[in-house]
Amino acid sequence: MLLTVLYLIAITAEAMTGALSAGRRGMDWFGVALIACITALGGGSVRDMLLGHYPLTWVKHPEYLVLTTFAALVTVFIAPLMRHLRSLFLVLDAMGLVAFTLIGCQIALDMGHGPLIAAVSGVITGVFGGILRDIFCNDVPLIFRRELYASVSFACAWCFLGCAYLGLGNEQSLLISLFGGLLFRLLSIRYHWEMPKFVYRDDPQG
Amino acid sequence: MLLTVLYLIAITAEAMTGALSAGRRGMDWFGVALIACITALGGGSVRDMLLGHYPLTWVKHPEYLVLTTFAALVTVFIAPLMRHLRSLFLVLDAMGLVAFTLIGCQIALDMGHGPLIAAVSGVITGVFGGILRDIFCNDVPLIFRRELYASVSFACAWCFLGCAYLGLGNEQSLLISLFGGLLFRLLSIRYHWEMPKFVYRDDPQG
Amino acid sequence: MLLTVLYLIAITAEAMTGALSAGRRGMDWFGVALIACITALGGGSVRDMLLGHYPLTWVKHPEYLVLTTFAALVTVFIAPLMRHLRSLFLVLDAMGLVAFTLIGCQIALDMGHGPLIAAVSGVITGVFGGILRDIFCNDVPLIFRRELYASVSFACAWCFLGCAYLGLGNEQSLLISLFGGLLFRLLSIRYHWEMPKFVYRDDPQG
Repeated sequence: MLLTVLYLIAITAEAMTGALSAGRRGMDWFGVALIACITALGGGSVRDMLLGHYPLTWVKHPEYLVLTTFAALVTVFIAPLMRHLRSLFLVLDAMGLVAFTLIGCQIALDMGHGPLIAAVSGVITGVFGGILRDIFCNDVPLIFRRELYASVSFACAWCFLGCAYLGLGNEQSLLISLFGGLLFRLLSIRYHWEMPKFVYRDDPQG
Repeated sequence: MLLTVLYLIAITAEAMTGALSAGRRGMDWFGVALIACITALGGGSVRDMLLGHYPLTWVKHPEYLVLTTFAALVTVFIAPLMRHLRSLFLVLDAMGLVAFTLIGCQIALDMGHGPLIAAVSGVITGVFGGILRDIFCNDVPLIFRRELYASVSFACAWCFLGCAYLGLGNEQSLLISLFGGLLFRLLSIRYHWEMPKFVYRDDPQG
Repeated sequence: MLLTVLYLIAITAEAMTGALSAGRRGMDWFGVALIACITALGGGSVRDMLLGHYPLTWVKHPEYLVLTTFAALVTVFIAPLMRHLRSLFLVLDAMGLVAFTLIGCQIALDMGHGPLIAAVSGVITGVFGGILRDIFCNDVPLIFRRELYASVSFACAWCFLGCAYLGLGNEQSLLISLFGGLLFRLLSIRYHWEMPKFVYRDDPQG
């Protein structure tokens, strides 16, 4: 199934970005593996705990833990190469974001939730891995400052829900929102699209 | 029902304080909405996940997500006014703290837990929204340093449990602890009551 | 039962280290008690929420909350003495790590999970209390930088699983991995054993 293949690519790519974040903080190999697993599998775990959807994905498929840990350790060794693979990673990361989002939507719908909760479930699956990575590395989560990322996830979720509402088959809806989301994310990187920011100071003279 | 009305006022007020925190970090609109939802609904979500009380409030009532997101976006536009509304917000926030606490107590009691777990459930509901907000904004949680806040929540929970123990009706117990807690919080702000602090240094010469 | 006794010693010791961390940040007494409870009981709570193992330990045994809170408040008063007890605390902390790990393993096995999830459950129980403590105090989790800590937990879990696989009785397996893990941890402190670190810089000239 297409989504499973995309999911495996996505958790591998996310694990590698997590490992690089851990490397920026000079963590040891255990920390690298843990941050990689959290980045790759954390979004889905948060979704499952919020929705009460047990067992969690990695508990049911412990081989995913092996895959993400392996990807993390590979990253340690090929780190000097990573600088040259930035564009590849941006594409893989975009694919991951969209795949996570659609899987999150699908799971909430399968549990019988309405469209709003399905969209929220998609966004949580898509973005919480990165948020947890940043919290564990003690950064202000990047997602709140970067180009459209969560918004792509949100739009992609609604595109999928809209297609389903219009009576398109599940496979067609997935493909349309997959390519739509991917295109939207890559365009937003290319042209530095950003959401308006809200800057507030307590002291008006500050 | 009184508690529901207070709850709606409370999540709106908490969402607005969350949005201001996000604004202090210069987050984009998505970050503002997310931090607002976490501040308003995070305490209850943590409680429900710890107690295994599914579905979570906002999953059952997705309209609360709409309300908190809407409150966050309104805050972005009326931010310059917020400076003049500080006292109003302190009162709303105090009301929210007390309402959250009593709801948390009530839910734990309804699940059949004893008084200690009910009090803990009340305090978690009351204070974890703010703690999560500060962690997501990468601050040391404010609550650990400010005037009596968690202590008000704790006292309010025990007041409610005490009233129930003395055989007062549910409605009466709620009203007494509601006003007692509100008064306690406002007095503690007014007179800068604080808990003693524990300051520890590893190095005695430090 | 041996594990229960070790568990009680472990949560007391962990609560005291949590209280000292809170004191380093100058938190008030409520913050001290909260950080102590999170340090002592957080690892098990995260494990139970991830595995869907309800009710949580402290919900079933609220007296553990009383014990950890009490240990935290005692710490506030005997803090000046703590400097002289460092070696004692390192031993107690090592015992706690090993006891938490074995309990986490055992619970996952009792739920019918395979060895990989059991080992992960052990490590989560062993190390997440300290990770949460550091996140709540707004530090980069120490565990990612210190001598072998998580690795001891991991090795101890596999030792236990290996003994069980070899057909040893539950009690024997526990004792062997308990002493093995304790010895491994104390040796790693004594000789400053460390895992290799992964240091990554985005900018090669940086």
